[in-house]
Amino acid sequence: MSTTATPIAIGPAATPLLTRAVADGGATVADLDRARALIWNSGPDDFPQELPAGIEWVQLFSAGVEDWFSRNVFQRFPGVVFTSAAGAYSHSVAEHALAMLLAGVRHLPQQTQARSWRQSEFFPHIGTLRGATIAIVGAGGIGRELIALLEPFGARIIAVTRSGTPIVAPGVVETLPAERLPEVWSRTDHVVVGAPATAATRHLIGKEELAQLKPTSWVINIARGSLIDTDALVVALRDGTIGGAGLDVTDPEPLPDGHPLWELPNAVVTPHDSNPPQLRAGAYAAHVANNVARFVAGDELEARIDVTAGY
Amino acid sequence: MSTTATPIAIGPAATPLLTRAVADGGATVADLDRARALIWNSGPDDFPQELPAGIEWVQLFSAGVEDWFSRNVFQRFPGVVFTSAAGAYSHSVAEHALAMLLAGVRHLPQQTQARSWRQSEFFPHIGTLRGATIAIVGAGGIGRELIALLEPFGARIIAVTRSGTPIVAPGVVETLPAERLPEVWSRTDHVVVGAPATAATRHLIGKEELAQLKPTSWVINIARGSLIDTDALVVALRDGTIGGAGLDVTDPEPLPDGHPLWELPNAVVTPHDSNPPQLRAGAYAAHVANNVARFVAGDELEARIDVTAGY
Repeated sequence: MSTTATPIAIGPAATPLLTRAVADGGATVADLDRARALIWNSGPDDFPQELPAGIEWVQLFSAGVEDWFSRNVFQRFPGVVFTSAAGAYSHSVAEHALAMLLAGVRHLPQQTQARSWRQSEFFPHIGTLRGATIAIVGAGGIGRELIALLEPFGARIIAVTRSGTPIVAPGVVETLPAERLPEVWSRTDHVVVGAPATAATRHLIGKEELAQLKPTSWVINIARGSLIDTDALVVALRDGTIGGAGLDVTDPEPLPDGHPLWELPNAVVTPHDSNPPQLRAGAYAAHVANNVARFVAGDELEARIDVTAGY
Repeated sequence: MSTTATPIAIGPAATPLLTRAVADGGATVADLDRARALIWNSGPDDFPQELPAGIEWVQLFSAGVEDWFSRNVFQRFPGVVFTSAAGAYSHSVAEHALAMLLAGVRHLPQQTQARSWRQSEFFPHIGTLRGATIAIVGAGGIGRELIALLEPFGARIIAVTRSGTPIVAPGVVETLPAERLPEVWSRTDHVVVGAPATAATRHLIGKEELAQLKPTSWVINIARGSLIDTDALVVALRDGTIGGAGLDVTDPEPLPDGHPLWELPNAVVTPHDSNPPQLRAGAYAAHVANNVARFVAGDELEARIDVTAGY
């Protein structure tokens, strides 16, 4: 590495994986005082109160950054570009979403709890993703990974994004802007929610939306619990007006003992573990290496936080 | 349809789907006495004791044909070509295999049975198919469909076929002939068994093979129960020397009440429902239309039964 290599700091403490990622991106690890960027490997609570004037860019470890907004971190550093790790953990989370969706469609939660051979009873409940219509609401990094995983099923994807700019990928039959979301519910077989948690997306799925889904529809949430009205969901699951729900996130979270979702046979709850630590460090390092290379080259950084939009 | 269209019979009774499939294939439905082929929509028990001399080809409804062999049906008609429905139901069965494998790797069976938020306990058990090595033993029609479904995961497939003729598909890193199967167990992360049930494949996975797998390995059987030594599997699942098993077929089958497999938290048993009737009729009709078109054109038929090999 030449002495002119871009100096980048790692905080609160360097790890071998991140040190290698900075080098892989073509930069060199430096102290914060002489660095042009900071790779932050922790949450907002121990983030520096002040940053040296030389810091142009801060890379955060988390994919969702509500906690950083609520602590007014970005507002304190108006001249600094912040990037999240949105996209870095996309594969693991998309894989989890597909696991829950496929398990649901194949009636595995109920079958796993059987203690006898109930073939004729289960037969009619076995569905397929082959040719199914799947709405991906909030088709960001995770949604795009999921679209790739669904492609060989021949599923028909309705993608919903804020802008509605068409997502060009095999299987995507339509991309709708957020304001056309009300059209989606009656047209889809299943729904995967991947939107960020903002005031506008709170209870994006409630009683009215659930009522338009099919008795075989599965609703998968791998984003944030607040996107779904939990009470309305419990009613729909209990009454069987939808097929089931796969929830890696809940509202409230953690889901308290005794909550009805724990007992419902058509609810699969996983405790926000779709992006487990042992898979995370490697994925974050790959994201860092990629963004460092972009920073060094002067290219646009991935997952830049839009302070005005709130994510 | 011209009067010279190939006459094909449907038995024991025509259905609208099969009638349309014969027409879609370019042939015409005829009585058995004047037909050149017979599309059989039932099992071996009500199959005709004799066939008119004009019958050149019989299409069977089942993908596995042990029952037909044990009743000596093929031997009674040495001049007739029989085709099975092998491949027709591949997608549904491959989808089921992936559903069980993904559920296992994502620890869903155990998570589904939790009644409290056990994040730190579950975290270390969440695996990924990303870059995983997966052995597909008996990579026929179902195996090939499964290879396609696994492609976007970036999984590394070791395919095992009788001949070892290389399967050229994205993700397949190696195709081994059956006699090199002993090399596979210690090299793979997971195993999917899709081989036909013959004397040579009985207990293809037993104590010795299971002992070479990893504590995180899932074994998926969507073929025939006899391929796995059930008693050895129960021991491996109980001791945790493998991660788990997803079984759509069992030995004995049906699995009797009280069998230890029902209670093991790392066993997912589905009662041979990976190819349910409501998905089957459409898939069989598509297979028939394809084979009828081949018959009319004089092309090689798909899924021709090899009477000498026994499948």
